[in-house]
Amino acid sequence: MLTVPAYAATSATEPLAPTTVERRDVGPHDVLIDIKYCGICHSDIHNVRSEWGPATYPLVPGHEIAGIVTQVGSEVTRHAVGDRVGVGCMVNSCRECVPCLRGEEQYCLKGNTLTYGSIDADGTLTQGGYSTHVVVNDDFVVTIPEGLGLDEAAPLLCAGITTYSPLRRWGAGPDKKVAVIGLGGLGHMAVKIAHAMGAEVTVLSQSLKKMDDGLRLGADHYYATGDPATFEQLAGTFDVILNTVSAKLDLDTFLGLLAVGGTMVNVGAPAEPLSLNVFSLIMQGRVYAGSLIGGIRETQEMLDFCAEHGIGAEVEIIPAEKINEAYERVLASDVRYRFVIDTATLA
Amino acid sequence: MLTVPAYAATSATEPLAPTTVERRDVGPHDVLIDIKYCGICHSDIHNVRSEWGPATYPLVPGHEIAGIVTQVGSEVTRHAVGDRVGVGCMVNSCRECVPCLRGEEQYCLKGNTLTYGSIDADGTLTQGGYSTHVVVNDDFVVTIPEGLGLDEAAPLLCAGITTYSPLRRWGAGPDKKVAVIGLGGLGHMAVKIAHAMGAEVTVLSQSLKKMDDGLRLGADHYYATGDPATFEQLAGTFDVILNTVSAKLDLDTFLGLLAVGGTMVNVGAPAEPLSLNVFSLIMQGRVYAGSLIGGIRETQEMLDFCAEHGIGAEVEIIPAEKINEAYERVLASDVRYRFVIDTATLA
Repeated sequence: MLTVPAYAATSATEPLAPTTVERRDVGPHDVLIDIKYCGICHSDIHNVRSEWGPATYPLVPGHEIAGIVTQVGSEVTRHAVGDRVGVGCMVNSCRECVPCLRGEEQYCLKGNTLTYGSIDADGTLTQGGYSTHVVVNDDFVVTIPEGLGLDEAAPLLCAGITTYSPLRRWGAGPDKKVAVIGLGGLGHMAVKIAHAMGAEVTVLSQSLKKMDDGLRLGADHYYATGDPATFEQLAGTFDVILNTVSAKLDLDTFLGLLAVGGTMVNVGAPAEPLSLNVFSLIMQGRVYAGSLIGGIRETQEMLDFCAEHGIGAEVEIIPAEKINEAYERVLASDVRYRFVIDTATLA
Repeated sequence: MLTVPAYAATSATEPLAPTTVERRDVGPHDVLIDIKYCGICHSDIHNVRSEWGPATYPLVPGHEIAGIVTQVGSEVTRHAVGDRVGVGCMVNSCRECVPCLRGEEQYCLKGNTLTYGSIDADGTLTQGGYSTHVVVNDDFVVTIPEGLGLDEAAPLLCAGITTYSPLRRWGAGPDKKVAVIGLGGLGHMAVKIAHAMGAEVTVLSQSLKKMDDGLRLGADHYYATGDPATFEQLAGTFDVILNTVSAKLDLDTFLGLLAVGGTMVNVGAPAEPLSLNVFSLIMQGRVYAGSLIGGIRETQEMLDFCAEHGIGAEVEIIPAEKINEAYERVLASDVRYRFVIDTATLA
């Protein structure tokens, strides 16, 4: 057992604070990772505040992990000491169900093991990446290709794969018009990835405040959804709309932006149910879909794609002591576009 | 100009009555069809009663037309006198927009011309198939293959293509589990077609009343949606659910029956908006889609498929004088499974 520095929440209401966390001994199929960077995902905040159900405390969040392998188990074949690796939202799954067998561990029918706050196969509670080290089953560790900095790679493990997977599934590419709703942590990656896939990319943001950024990141067009004229002007335009925001929106109005046969995919989910007029789908053969992160094989594919296209996240690197402040800034949408913790500041 | 017998609605509230209707002279691109049978679609009732917006009266409904070509225009190449042909929901479209160019005239961006109650390119109001003859542009006339009776083929022009198109698009076939909600005019065709495509077919009907029929038509399983146990038993089962009913339903409950990555498609549309919890889609990568009839090319493909597999509609042939009675029976779900008017009774 290894006891390592970490930052943890001790209740739904207290700020996160320095602590230590125990990591299991490296088993035959495990790798020990020296964490270099860990991204701060909006869902970390929901989880530590028990907003998505009661959390078990103390809880170390963090599922955008990038680091270096420092030890491998006897049966490990995919990674070696010194490898640059990443861990995303999952650290285990049943490996036997239909989704697992086709590489969609995020939809494991028996329920996968999340990187933090989840009960692992050995009965212990998983603890995340706001920490200096983590022990993870080799099958859930991906390779970060050379050419991607570990800092800019960390957010790819959640924000990158969450947007890459639906863009691939729904055919973003040359001659396709893709809209991205929201230019936050997920949205800024969606813009970069859809642009690299060859699509014509439009950002749909509440205001034009981040327009310069959006265009710099690869968007071809930028419209404010706060302006009703946007919906008239862009009616029937998009092959794919990727909705990265969790705010409740007028679904029928946004579906009206889809071309015939087009697809709107939600990766952000509002807490309340939405109202949907089914005619919005029928009359133009439209599709409304949901998507959850992506599988391990696809996460590797996404990292290779990003490396090939020189795409990393736009990050603001912070020391651990700024985590609580960063949370407030995430909630205020005051981050361009992902906070990444330099875990050297934990030690 | 040809004046021919027909049955028409003269107001939203009066019963349909015998009348005559004028058909244009056969133009260079037109064919004159001697109508043998015309199906009664539930949407005929909505239209003649002005339930989908105000209709222009007198109105001759009918868009499930099967007959014989008796005259062709000088430029007609696809059909000849004596051909067995069909006409479905559309008789014209712009032929220039993206959907038209890819054979999806049902989604024509300029608005296609419906078979009845629509303003045609020449400015006249179209009148449908409850009549002895109709003049239609050759491009919107399909061939009814030998081996399909004209009576059992008529309903394929709407009920057949409306179910075939989404089943094809969403991959119904071997090793796929398909559920059909509702065993009416659309549903009974969906069961036959999905079965012929090689899928394992389940009917989800309010009760088990029509179970024997469902199994005879090709369903492998039959469940009552009135029984809450159905939703527990079948949770996460289906690759495709085709919803043929227009009644308002609990969308999240039905989405729960989809397997990971599965698709529910609506061809029936409730008048009121539905409530949708987006988590129902996200957590298992599910899809909710709409579909509207099908294009002309695909309608021909569907007819060829049905002929190859020996699939026609289950019809109850009625004389014209029974049309009003048939409407009441459609509204009472007392039809197995499509009324078809023998237009010889109009003359």
